[in-house]
Amino acid sequence: MADLNSLRDQLRTFAAERDWDQFHSPKNLASALAVEAAELLEKFQWLTETESQNLPPDALEGVRHEIADVLLYLIRVSDKLGIDLIAAAQAKIALNAEKYPVDLARGTSKKYHEL
Amino acid sequence: MADLNSLRDQLRTFAAERDWDQFHSPKNLASALAVEAAELLEKFQWLTETESQNLPPDALEGVRHEIADVLLYLIRVSDKLGIDLIAAAQAKIALNAEKYPVDLARGTSKKYHEL
Amino acid sequence: MADLNSLRDQLRTFAAERDWDQFHSPKNLASALAVEAAELLEKFQWLTETESQNLPPDALEGVRHEIADVLLYLIRVSDKLGIDLIAAAQAKIALNAEKYPVDLARGTSKKYHEL
Amino acid sequence: MADLNSLRDQLRTFAAERDWDQFHSPKNLASALAVEAAELLEKFQWLTETESQNLPPDALEGVRHEIADVLLYLIRVSDKLGIDLIAAAQAKIALNAEKYPVDLARGTSKKYHEL
Repeated sequence: MADLNSLRDQLRTFAAERDWDQFHSPKNLASALAVEAAELLEKFQWLTETESQNLPPDALEGVRHEIADVLLYLIRVSDKLGIDLIAAAQAKIALNAEKYPVDLARGTSKKYHEL
Repeated sequence: MADLNSLRDQLRTFAAERDWDQFHSPKNLASALAVEAAELLEKFQWLTETESQNLPPDALEGVRHEIADVLLYLIRVSDKLGIDLIAAAQAKIALNAEKYPVDLARGTSKKYHEL
Repeated sequence: MADLNSLRDQLRTFAAERDWDQFHSPKNLASALAVEAAELLEKFQWLTETESQNLPPDALEGVRHEIADVLLYLIRVSDKLGIDLIAAAQAKIALNAEKYPVDLARGTSKKYHEL
Repeated sequence: MADLNSLRDQLRTFAAERDWDQFHSPKNLASALAVEAAELLEKFQWLTETESQNLPPDALEGVRHEIADVLLYLIRVSDKLGIDLIAAAQAKIALNAEKYPVDLARGTSKKYHEL
């Protein structure tokens, strides 16, 4: 089974074989990531929240492709910047736990500076 | 060391403790993901591509936080939809290899339907 | 009362006085526009649709600022590209009327190629 | 020649004829706006800044369509929220002039809180 490091290595080879590193500056990859995230959002934009929880199989398959694209660009931009995705996410969870204490954040969607 | 499954489980607990599942429909999580991807993009928007490849430490730390946020929401929306992130990404790489054959895609940023 | 041309001229002066034209390539302005659109989206991401229709005054004021930012970058990128915003929008309405005939599009959010 | 009010009225009729107001909550329109802004960004994501300033005619035409889509959703969400686009933009220019004084902001892309 692949893991993030394996995917990273495959993407390196993919880009190298196609001479695409010339396009893959962090700035450009961040744009591509935002575009893919918007393509994911587009799948949901006219659905109700309840509908978004009950996608028919073909819609779910389309969503799965967009989610994959987001992850691939996220791996790629992290690789170009030397960022360890898992470690960064683990550190952010710890930070979020401080910003959103359970007793203040329970049941509200307010941002931390409004709690 | 954490992995994606561990992060997924931590996020489940994080949301449950704060009674946040009521906000976490796939539709809303896709919006939050797009917002975080844009916050990442904001870090690069006025930089040249070369500058984006040579971030000073404090800018890199800011970028690392935004990248983490994108991954956390990506894990969360995938969890809510029952999508295996690694498997989806692995399948998408295979699909991209078909859409972008090396000999046609080398050195160009054209989309597959223009090759 | 200002109009789009007046706003365009004010933005030209604003950028010239600050020597900002060096940053305002269409590519960068398109990024900034996407970032501002995401900041607008952020105001709504955890709200229900009904709540989004009934914003309290301070939330509405925040939304108004983000909407203004989107328009300002839209005017700016159009100016840099020599695009007449009103004429482009008028032409697009005509095109949309062809893509979404009333009898096929009524009551559905499907895209035109699915109708 | 059309103006923003005329476009707003045309969009009202367009939606009413298709029974689309049921989909057009401010939340959903903000999502659609962000999606269109990303489609505009996609046109530039792999271009250099210089290339983005010298688009060939067919690329410029594609960009013009995306810019039109952004304006149409911006008009639509403003209409649903009772926001006067021109007045909001005019007020924001005045605010930006305070946040970015000429002598501090000249030649830098820093945000106002870093000046």
